[in-house]
Amino acid sequence: MALIVQKFGGTSVGSIERIRKVAQIVRETWESGHRLVVVVSAMSGETDRLLRLAYELSAEPHEREMDMLLSSGERVTSALLAIVLNEMKIPAQSMTGRQVGIKTDSVHTKARIASISSERLTETLQKGIIPIVAGFQGISAEENVTTLGRGGSDTTAVALAVAVKADRCDIYTDVLGVYTADPNLVPSARKLDQISYEEMLEMASLGAKVLQTRSVEFAMKYKMPVRVRSTFSTDPGTLVTEEEKRMEHIVVSGITLDKNQAKITVQDVPDKPGLAARLFETISSQSIVVDMIVQNVGQDGLTDISYTVPRSDARKAERLAAQIASEIGAGEIKIKEDIVKISIIGVGMRSHSGVAARMFSTLAREGINILMISTSEIKISCLIDEKYSELSVRALHEEFQPETRGTLHEG
Amino acid sequence: MALIVQKFGGTSVGSIERIRKVAQIVRETWESGHRLVVVVSAMSGETDRLLRLAYELSAEPHEREMDMLLSSGERVTSALLAIVLNEMKIPAQSMTGRQVGIKTDSVHTKARIASISSERLTETLQKGIIPIVAGFQGISAEENVTTLGRGGSDTTAVALAVAVKADRCDIYTDVLGVYTADPNLVPSARKLDQISYEEMLEMASLGAKVLQTRSVEFAMKYKMPVRVRSTFSTDPGTLVTEEEKRMEHIVVSGITLDKNQAKITVQDVPDKPGLAARLFETISSQSIVVDMIVQNVGQDGLTDISYTVPRSDARKAERLAAQIASEIGAGEIKIKEDIVKISIIGVGMRSHSGVAARMFSTLAREGINILMISTSEIKISCLIDEKYSELSVRALHEEFQPETRGTLHEG
Repeated sequence: MALIVQKFGGTSVGSIERIRKVAQIVRETWESGHRLVVVVSAMSGETDRLLRLAYELSAEPHEREMDMLLSSGERVTSALLAIVLNEMKIPAQSMTGRQVGIKTDSVHTKARIASISSERLTETLQKGIIPIVAGFQGISAEENVTTLGRGGSDTTAVALAVAVKADRCDIYTDVLGVYTADPNLVPSARKLDQISYEEMLEMASLGAKVLQTRSVEFAMKYKMPVRVRSTFSTDPGTLVTEEEKRMEHIVVSGITLDKNQAKITVQDVPDKPGLAARLFETISSQSIVVDMIVQNVGQDGLTDISYTVPRSDARKAERLAAQIASEIGAGEIKIKEDIVKISIIGVGMRSHSGVAARMFSTLAREGINILMISTSEIKISCLIDEKYSELSVRALHEEFQPETRGTLHEG
Repeated sequence: MALIVQKFGGTSVGSIERIRKVAQIVRETWESGHRLVVVVSAMSGETDRLLRLAYELSAEPHEREMDMLLSSGERVTSALLAIVLNEMKIPAQSMTGRQVGIKTDSVHTKARIASISSERLTETLQKGIIPIVAGFQGISAEENVTTLGRGGSDTTAVALAVAVKADRCDIYTDVLGVYTADPNLVPSARKLDQISYEEMLEMASLGAKVLQTRSVEFAMKYKMPVRVRSTFSTDPGTLVTEEEKRMEHIVVSGITLDKNQAKITVQDVPDKPGLAARLFETISSQSIVVDMIVQNVGQDGLTDISYTVPRSDARKAERLAAQIASEIGAGEIKIKEDIVKISIIGVGMRSHSGVAARMFSTLAREGINILMISTSEIKISCLIDEKYSELSVRALHEEFQPETRGTLHEG
């Protein structure tokens, strides 16, 4: 008699037949005596359809309006799933982000959850009704509809799981779980049975699209067990949970490739204190996340500052850079979009030295040039040319795979 | 410098190109110095698409969920129109039914407006922003999304016009205005320049789909001038306004055909007081509107009660009838759906006698049998077999047309 949050992604609800399949999963859980909250995404293709309409009307659609537009997709799915469950005599009720009390900041298209007032959700559960929540959305203090960014329904699910003190949060998707690398690129990639929050967090933010980064942050902060599993299989998937001792045997748990990268270079920046700060403050004030930064000091008192931003923000970031450059008397702006970030992740790196060196020499052996590097305690990322995407993932998987495999056999 | 409410129907916003066209109309009005509130319907085809999805999942989809589902269509349009207006540097903001303060009762799928708290709408106008309102929807006291029934965006528009004390309400649609009869059926049908609220009310409720009945009731109650006109023409359309003296010269202003009719007969009802009341109270408690009623008293103390309901409610009405019939010991239920209601409308009927007789003899001359009759001060309706639809409209238009024409020339 657990309380479970189940979240179904876009492909899981991508057609009427699939919505029926999801209803079956909900019914089975319900009939096993569990209570549950269901969170749904927009039907696959729907968000893209709406985006296309918006971009036909404007190259940079007004962000408040984009939230009004895109939030409709999840509402449709929640109503449809509630309709089929009611048809099956299972009490269910669609609920919007506002109705489940998700209050966010006012950063449209990538709002962050500020608080959750879950009274109505709790009441609904107490009445024995299954809430079918439209994911991805909330409401700002100004009572405007906001959305939580791509993959935001994961965050809705984990945040609601925390709010109602669920026993666990199951994220149903179209893959069996979290893999050591993208199986489309690396045929020998394997599903992980278990992964730590820290590793999942790195993998999510480094381009493994299986969970939205913020959902993992929430889960880690509140120690909410999250299971990533397939809607179309009975495989138990991958459990995202607290780090266990035995995980340290694994040096590298996963390899990710992030194609959503663009590199911007501001040339000939006068080498005076405060200029870089001004640049990055302006960019971050527009809610653009800068990832890697490199500064090359020249001999003439001028420096080049290069940094990476999500490719989807590249146009906006470039315009901002040009504006600041003219204010501070810097030179030209260069933008490079055919680049990717390749990363290796593993809590085992903490206790194993020489991992970075092995990564760099593996890439060098394949003739792959490294443009930028960034590291944390449990990951190493390299920015490389996009054309080396597959080659780099395969080479690194080949290099680090044995440890991964060994541990999977152990677990 | 007027304050105008403009409402654009589904075909007017049916594609990206058409949304651009609507934006042009809004821009021209705005640039003429008027303030305005815009109300939009769902893109044509969208509501039907959503209905199809729902009916694939359930023969009788849960009505609360239908409202959540269908209300998304108007939200999409309002966001898209706001996006293109912002792109044109015209300050515009999409607003939902809840955001403009439309509070309704809790009768899902055909809610009625209970009150409007227009503070936020007024604030938005005062900021110089054009509110782009998602029509058709409101919010119940329980904070659930409700919808106002097919054509409900007309009612949203007129009700908001009243709430903000607009100078007029323009309903943009895909026809030039209100016609003397459906031009698809009667090639000689003509557009009316002006029509009284009373006549429009009868026409709307009798099947002319140009305005939702309730929107006309609102307009009449608050004397709000409504202009029905085409998005695709500069023709001034038809003004719906208070009755003028000269209108009385017209005997018949319009002829309508309502195909949304089903006749239900409860056979062998014991002829005891209160049984009919019980039947119709039960039906109306389910928010089904009964239109015509005929009772045939037999010789054996048993009567047949026949009545018409909207065809879309026929299934539900039949089930209710069967339930009551078994409770009160009545006989079989018969249902007939291949029927239509043909009506003639005109304020001139008040001062002209013999109109009904002319209508009946015209139908008789064509061999059309009349199943039921109902009349009001300014209209006469006959229920007939569906197969006579076109024939009856044409014959009646031919019979009454001269008066209509004469007056149009006068006006």
